[in-house]
Amino acid sequence: MSRELVVALSGGIGGAKLALGLSRIVQPENLLVVANVGDDFEHLGLRISPDADTLMYTLAGLDNTKLGWGRRDETWSFMETLASIGGEDWFRLGDRDLAVHIERTRRLQGGETLSAIAADFCHRLGVGPRVLPATDDRLRTRLRTDEGWLDFQDYFVRLQCRPAVRELHFEGAETARPHPDLLAALRDERLRAVVICPSNPFISVEPILAVAGMRQALSACAAPVVAVSPIIGGRAVKGPTAKMMRELGMTPSAAAVAERYRDLIDGYVMDMEDAEEAARVRPKATLAQTLMTSLAEREELARVVLAAADAHAYTKGGRDIVA
Amino acid sequence: MSRELVVALSGGIGGAKLALGLSRIVQPENLLVVANVGDDFEHLGLRISPDADTLMYTLAGLDNTKLGWGRRDETWSFMETLASIGGEDWFRLGDRDLAVHIERTRRLQGGETLSAIAADFCHRLGVGPRVLPATDDRLRTRLRTDEGWLDFQDYFVRLQCRPAVRELHFEGAETARPHPDLLAALRDERLRAVVICPSNPFISVEPILAVAGMRQALSACAAPVVAVSPIIGGRAVKGPTAKMMRELGMTPSAAAVAERYRDLIDGYVMDMEDAEEAARVRPKATLAQTLMTSLAEREELARVVLAAADAHAYTKGGRDIVA
Repeated sequence: MSRELVVALSGGIGGAKLALGLSRIVQPENLLVVANVGDDFEHLGLRISPDADTLMYTLAGLDNTKLGWGRRDETWSFMETLASIGGEDWFRLGDRDLAVHIERTRRLQGGETLSAIAADFCHRLGVGPRVLPATDDRLRTRLRTDEGWLDFQDYFVRLQCRPAVRELHFEGAETARPHPDLLAALRDERLRAVVICPSNPFISVEPILAVAGMRQALSACAAPVVAVSPIIGGRAVKGPTAKMMRELGMTPSAAAVAERYRDLIDGYVMDMEDAEEAARVRPKATLAQTLMTSLAEREELARVVLAAADAHAYTKGGRDIVA
Repeated sequence: MSRELVVALSGGIGGAKLALGLSRIVQPENLLVVANVGDDFEHLGLRISPDADTLMYTLAGLDNTKLGWGRRDETWSFMETLASIGGEDWFRLGDRDLAVHIERTRRLQGGETLSAIAADFCHRLGVGPRVLPATDDRLRTRLRTDEGWLDFQDYFVRLQCRPAVRELHFEGAETARPHPDLLAALRDERLRAVVICPSNPFISVEPILAVAGMRQALSACAAPVVAVSPIIGGRAVKGPTAKMMRELGMTPSAAAVAERYRDLIDGYVMDMEDAEEAARVRPKATLAQTLMTSLAEREELARVVLAAADAHAYTKGGRDIVA
């Protein structure tokens, strides 16, 4: 029995880097990248799905490396004109990116599912691995802050993460169902590893885990679950992870993230810079270079993560593994 | 009593040229440009309003003079990307133009009227005269062709006017109501003239005339109604007017257009090139240069049209006119 299937749980930018690394060492048909949908929202009448799109653009080689988000070769005529006629311009939508939102919205209104549309877009853009929204049901991250309850994009983009976060709520999570193909993958005896990408635990990973039945499915899963720390030296590579940890009463550290995932994970990969912390991390941590500045580093981290999973396969499932 | 108000009934490109000419000799607050809405349609989930937008862009100096339609300084990233993900690309929407459609759709969904949104967009883009959709109600031009009944844009853009037209129908016209401000303008004792712009009679002017009550309001109107021929030397300056006339059993000529409008108009302006036909035109025609290639020619034709109206004011209303 060859165990070759890899499931990666991911948010946007940071997670997409590791997903790209994984896509270079795992056969496309064996990689399932599960996208957070808690960031999704309706804006200007359009359904925006930021994390799935970032994953799609990154895996298609169409990501905007200069901006760090959005699409390559982007133009901004739409946004400029929208501002000139009094439209809302706090959420920047490039002209190319917009095509994805308009076409997705049209197809959703025609009765297609978010996941089917994402699969078709990926296929058309030449993305090999499958990018699967965690659920086709409605799930929205909301945050209780010192300015009251906020919708995710109000907090994240409009207010640029300035309000202090006190509590998170994943609206719809109780009734949302994991995509059947995700549940099937977690039960698949060919599953080699579940990778929790170095994304923000609170707003990228936990909205996936919050989908009803997901934690149980992960606990029941025979393959090792390995998380990668989004924190290096007490700081987040990008985004508000460290700030949010402090606001939620945690010390921003790789160890604290491991603690947060403790009941789910079999392995943990953290940065060599945090070697001192490693002793107090459970499960036992693997040290690696987790900052992925080049494509080679993405691929290398992906190898380390799968090796860490393989090392735990005996203790978890006791079955043969693919080296 | 000064009669200074001018109402112009217009389709897109050709009509917009004369509207621009009028805007240079009539005070902005005294010019009401009534836009055909029979071309309006829903596409990609967006409400597109081609004639009102062409009028707005032209009056704002934002029209794309190279293409002959759409917006100046346009970019096409959206369309390119839409095609790459399998979206419908037969109706070309520029990135800047798209902002208008998205914002209009959003505001319509929020309960605003087409006319209020058009007024606000015009105001923001610095357009002085008012561009008023003929009706806020739903009205759609459909055409019976040798390929069956077609929606307007299917005929006009997708099939590039190739099917032969046998009959036109203005869906919704019976229940649509002219905008109250249009009815008020037609009753206004300050009204100097109603101008029927050199637009296609069948698909640009008659959808306006078809709105329930419009023909009666025009007949009851005290000011002269003057039409400008869209046909010069048996040919249309642009678009399918001549082809459509033949298909509908008419000889494409300035005289035939005058005949079509006969029960509505007090004056008719036709091209000097058609001088021979003038003798058989009723009402008596004014000869002028109607091809408007420069801004000066637009303004000059506007002067001729208003002078023709003024010449008929005595016979129609018997009141004093503004020279």
